[in-house]
Amino acid sequence: MSGNTFGTLFAVTNFGESHGPAIGCVIDGCPPGMELSEADIQPDLDRRRPGTSRHVTQRQEEDKVEILSGVYEGRTTGTPICLLIRNTDQRSKDYSEIAQKFRPGHADYTYFEKYGLRDPRGGGRSSARLTAPMVAAGAVAKRWLQQKHGTTFRGCMQQVGEIVIPFESWEHVPDNPFFAPVADVSELEAYMDRLRKSGDSCGARIRVTASGMPVGLGQPLFDKLDAEIAYAMMGINAVKGVEIGAGFGSVVQRGSVHGDSLTPNGFATNNAGGVLGGISTGQDLEVSIAIKPTSSILTPRDSIDVAGNATQVITKGRHDPCVGIRATPIAEAMLALVVMDLALRHRAQCADVAVPLSPIPASVR
Amino acid sequence: MSGNTFGTLFAVTNFGESHGPAIGCVIDGCPPGMELSEADIQPDLDRRRPGTSRHVTQRQEEDKVEILSGVYEGRTTGTPICLLIRNTDQRSKDYSEIAQKFRPGHADYTYFEKYGLRDPRGGGRSSARLTAPMVAAGAVAKRWLQQKHGTTFRGCMQQVGEIVIPFESWEHVPDNPFFAPVADVSELEAYMDRLRKSGDSCGARIRVTASGMPVGLGQPLFDKLDAEIAYAMMGINAVKGVEIGAGFGSVVQRGSVHGDSLTPNGFATNNAGGVLGGISTGQDLEVSIAIKPTSSILTPRDSIDVAGNATQVITKGRHDPCVGIRATPIAEAMLALVVMDLALRHRAQCADVAVPLSPIPASVR
Amino acid sequence: MSGNTFGTLFAVTNFGESHGPAIGCVIDGCPPGMELSEADIQPDLDRRRPGTSRHVTQRQEEDKVEILSGVYEGRTTGTPICLLIRNTDQRSKDYSEIAQKFRPGHADYTYFEKYGLRDPRGGGRSSARLTAPMVAAGAVAKRWLQQKHGTTFRGCMQQVGEIVIPFESWEHVPDNPFFAPVADVSELEAYMDRLRKSGDSCGARIRVTASGMPVGLGQPLFDKLDAEIAYAMMGINAVKGVEIGAGFGSVVQRGSVHGDSLTPNGFATNNAGGVLGGISTGQDLEVSIAIKPTSSILTPRDSIDVAGNATQVITKGRHDPCVGIRATPIAEAMLALVVMDLALRHRAQCADVAVPLSPIPASVR
Amino acid sequence: MSGNTFGTLFAVTNFGESHGPAIGCVIDGCPPGMELSEADIQPDLDRRRPGTSRHVTQRQEEDKVEILSGVYEGRTTGTPICLLIRNTDQRSKDYSEIAQKFRPGHADYTYFEKYGLRDPRGGGRSSARLTAPMVAAGAVAKRWLQQKHGTTFRGCMQQVGEIVIPFESWEHVPDNPFFAPVADVSELEAYMDRLRKSGDSCGARIRVTASGMPVGLGQPLFDKLDAEIAYAMMGINAVKGVEIGAGFGSVVQRGSVHGDSLTPNGFATNNAGGVLGGISTGQDLEVSIAIKPTSSILTPRDSIDVAGNATQVITKGRHDPCVGIRATPIAEAMLALVVMDLALRHRAQCADVAVPLSPIPASVR
Repeated sequence: MSGNTFGTLFAVTNFGESHGPAIGCVIDGCPPGMELSEADIQPDLDRRRPGTSRHVTQRQEEDKVEILSGVYEGRTTGTPICLLIRNTDQRSKDYSEIAQKFRPGHADYTYFEKYGLRDPRGGGRSSARLTAPMVAAGAVAKRWLQQKHGTTFRGCMQQVGEIVIPFESWEHVPDNPFFAPVADVSELEAYMDRLRKSGDSCGARIRVTASGMPVGLGQPLFDKLDAEIAYAMMGINAVKGVEIGAGFGSVVQRGSVHGDSLTPNGFATNNAGGVLGGISTGQDLEVSIAIKPTSSILTPRDSIDVAGNATQVITKGRHDPCVGIRATPIAEAMLALVVMDLALRHRAQCADVAVPLSPIPASVR
Repeated sequence: MSGNTFGTLFAVTNFGESHGPAIGCVIDGCPPGMELSEADIQPDLDRRRPGTSRHVTQRQEEDKVEILSGVYEGRTTGTPICLLIRNTDQRSKDYSEIAQKFRPGHADYTYFEKYGLRDPRGGGRSSARLTAPMVAAGAVAKRWLQQKHGTTFRGCMQQVGEIVIPFESWEHVPDNPFFAPVADVSELEAYMDRLRKSGDSCGARIRVTASGMPVGLGQPLFDKLDAEIAYAMMGINAVKGVEIGAGFGSVVQRGSVHGDSLTPNGFATNNAGGVLGGISTGQDLEVSIAIKPTSSILTPRDSIDVAGNATQVITKGRHDPCVGIRATPIAEAMLALVVMDLALRHRAQCADVAVPLSPIPASVR
Repeated sequence: MSGNTFGTLFAVTNFGESHGPAIGCVIDGCPPGMELSEADIQPDLDRRRPGTSRHVTQRQEEDKVEILSGVYEGRTTGTPICLLIRNTDQRSKDYSEIAQKFRPGHADYTYFEKYGLRDPRGGGRSSARLTAPMVAAGAVAKRWLQQKHGTTFRGCMQQVGEIVIPFESWEHVPDNPFFAPVADVSELEAYMDRLRKSGDSCGARIRVTASGMPVGLGQPLFDKLDAEIAYAMMGINAVKGVEIGAGFGSVVQRGSVHGDSLTPNGFATNNAGGVLGGISTGQDLEVSIAIKPTSSILTPRDSIDVAGNATQVITKGRHDPCVGIRATPIAEAMLALVVMDLALRHRAQCADVAVPLSPIPASVR
Repeated sequence: MSGNTFGTLFAVTNFGESHGPAIGCVIDGCPPGMELSEADIQPDLDRRRPGTSRHVTQRQEEDKVEILSGVYEGRTTGTPICLLIRNTDQRSKDYSEIAQKFRPGHADYTYFEKYGLRDPRGGGRSSARLTAPMVAAGAVAKRWLQQKHGTTFRGCMQQVGEIVIPFESWEHVPDNPFFAPVADVSELEAYMDRLRKSGDSCGARIRVTASGMPVGLGQPLFDKLDAEIAYAMMGINAVKGVEIGAGFGSVVQRGSVHGDSLTPNGFATNNAGGVLGGISTGQDLEVSIAIKPTSSILTPRDSIDVAGNATQVITKGRHDPCVGIRATPIAEAMLALVVMDLALRHRAQCADVAVPLSPIPASVR
């Protein structure tokens, strides 16, 4: 209700601030009996971790996850799983100046107006650091979905600023710091180096998918699968747009083209992006998101202080010229959390449904 | 949980099917003491109503709303408001054929797989007709927000298929059946006439806004104002993409441009679309959505039947060549429902906040 | 959130006022494919109906239920089921006097303070008439639980005022207007006749049970089965106390007596009332509730008017000397709604659990 | 949904097991700007702490609370407050035997059936130790309610086994280990010593109250104030019965006696226990609960093992002969959490209500 819990049956409650002692989450609703240890969660956190290349913020955080509850003798017990990540690099600088000014494009102003006070240290609660517990929770969801349904999640970078990145192969994604599906990222590296030196920032476009989707997930009127995805994606810091399947491209499509034909061997195309009427078709989920340029930049900007006087703001210190770079594992995690929650909801209501004939072979959906 | 209730503190539970005896909703959480009668709701329903021009479906529905509860002597009592809309034109045709086939691009297949059975009459529960109760509920929310905060909602058509519609003035919107903000819609009319004759359909792009927004609405981590908007918009039938403010355009913006400067007289620009860190800035909310082409078309399409055999599907009878045309009042209503719910949530938690100085004059936010 | 929806996965949203045009509810979350018609619901409504004996209110209501949605060709579709009951006997008397005074023991005062206005006609929203839609929803839950798990619900009167009613047999319950499990109710009838003539009212004690319970229902920390039952029962108008199993009697029990021994043939006793650690044991649920005397009585009472001046209040017209008499079918329905919701929640989370050995034969649990 | 979050607008998510590394909770929805430190929470935890007298379990736990998030410079920020309590005395005994048997009256059997596995160390998640985070959360709620509304919470022991304790004065409660409102507890001490030596256990009856209640709290149909109280109380380990106001005593009352008269100076009596129609009257809340005897006793009991064979169970080691003794601060905390949540919900919906005249002076309600 106050917006710190994601999901209903697989409910993840997030807590912490960027520079407090720790961040973390409590997962309530994980089915019992699944093997789980920190080693199953850490790899996804490592993919999101700052400081791993010169193109992202140089904050040094180990982001080491601890399971505080909900697991006994290596198996989930069906009780709440508390995951804790301690903050280690809080860099105790002087926040008195930043506490008195509002950074353009940042949540400073709105937090101050909403709450009457805010924690200015590293952005406090509005920091993208709070996505780390979601990546951890997403790893738990991914594990269950993989074991139970064979569903897998992948993401990649589609565009950085003006640089559109062609899709070559998923196999290149782990081999570069951009999650780019291309073998050669030298152009991207040069672009990012120029941008960083200019003290400015740029936006990005990310694609995330789920394969091996169960058919029938999603509540048809309001908690549509695509509506839940849009909610999850738009909830990631800096996201300004979400598309499913053909997305904004569908505006200029004809109905005779957009509607994916069904054949005895599966759907012929996937303009739907894996969702019809808010319910999964079994095809790959196809999601694309727009991420705005980082608002904390080294370039001076016009703003006001808390007394309403004109001033200038400049962000010193660590700088993340394209927050979109680290967004891929976050978007994957959020997609997994959506699918997980809807999978549990589906079996509550429709566990007894035995469709007389599943007309489309799962392999080619 | 099962996806038929929208909102939490201003909770709207929707019921009904396209060709059942009635559709409607129950609003739980409307503050007491507000003057309300059917006459306050009917105008928005009339804007959404089918059959009002040759460019939309010719189904004849009065869409007359009845208040069954929650109002006493012309005022809301704080108890549930049940709004009922009877279905009158159910055209009792033979659905036996359509019940055996899946229309491409339609929810037929996914409903069948999810539930094991479906109501095929006019799309049953998956019909866009179920947006009517939301328009009715939205009218109640709009009324409260107008009276309490002076917030108003508007929407217009931005694009129909390939035809991009320039923004001339809000005042033209009520004067044409497309909700187009232009004086001359002859090109649009010709385009739609050609499309209808071809038996095909096209997509559309809609803009909706809220003006006079209170500052501070939105929960910062998950129930962000923009996340809730994305959820609401993607929940409207046929929507495939959502943008807030600069949207996908922010991918190619620099941070020094995107971040809206603050001045003692207000924000200098509105790339944020009225939301920073998930919380309203007080600027206009700016939302844009993509609507796919209608899936029920007169053109024959390849598909399968419930036994999995290849077949062809053609939709006979009434035809809506661009479902986007009637989407404007729906999108306005959903936006109003989002703002209403977050306004109530905000005062639960932050009613005692007295910001020392509201730095930006409300008039120019 | 505003308190008019009961349950989460089998969520029943209640609407209406005593003297409005109709009362009803929307059930969201009923599994698809179950045969359902009005004839499956009406019998329980008839058991609760007023005017069936001289011992209860003489309001004449047919309480005829209509299914407005969610059922197609005689089967539930998994979409919301709207149940409507029209009010027919609203007896349009003059409410101007009662609207200005607060009846002792009634919700008049608190509604007025909470909402600033109230619907005084027949108690408006605070009328026990609003239990009728719950009885209807409970009938749907009972039907599913009976078909799916073989679970059945029964209730009976244990005490009326000072008259303690011994338990003779369930078979007598339908044969008298008190739901008393005894063959001879002449003493009860005489007691009630005297009470009615005196213009006063009395309390009652009701027992409700569920047999054939699945093991494992209930969330262990907060949504314990017994906590949900207590919430449901205390939510029935006029209920002031709830006991599970040994209840208040457990205060004077020794642990060596209270703890029900387990044997290879089942539990030896049922002090637990079918719940351990908040989770069902498979034994019968045993619940007992206290219902206060009716507050609307023919005896004059001291009170104040809305201006705060001392006055006297007397309720004229129809009189229900023991509201507990009609409470049995209501309590059964609420118990069924609790079990239904927890049954669906259980399969969301624990559907994969295969206990190596269910040690206690189901027949003797 | 999975039962580990209490409340909706002041939502407390509880995590941890008796013998895991830590227990704790996340409070989501605490209003911003309230001064808060560990020192405001610790005193209530100390009242609940084990090992403080010979009459309760000898487990040695400091129960020291740490605030991990949500507080900045000594004030709440409106973001989630994570409270952590580390477990220090887990006494690593051999649980292999107890893991194979089910203790009568304990959650062993139902956890095993529900989840297919359980954490047997000290009761795992079913341990009453999990009430400690609720006491901590309750302290935060109490603080806000005291500052905002002047509401205060108190509780005392009414009965231990057969010993009924007369109410002498609230001032005696802190002076003895039983929370008894009497000056002389020598009889109680002798009773408890005999009980402990016998290796058996007994039940208890507790009273909790709230004074200085705001009028108008509670949702009238389902989330009635009394229904929420019943839910909260029945959710405390070992509680088997709940009464509000006259409770089960109302069964034998006449309506002319039970209904509390209103006078210009306030209500004349409080049979209602501070609730009418589910809404607070402003009078003291009066709640009474029954707590069953401890199920872990030193007396051998008949039971079965996980293979279904007959066996005997005896609990060795630390022994708590009356779990009711430590229940008073727990019941107070749960009552405070109920009132807190309903207070926030009330201002969401009814913040604009200005009752023309509040007829009853607050001082004498």
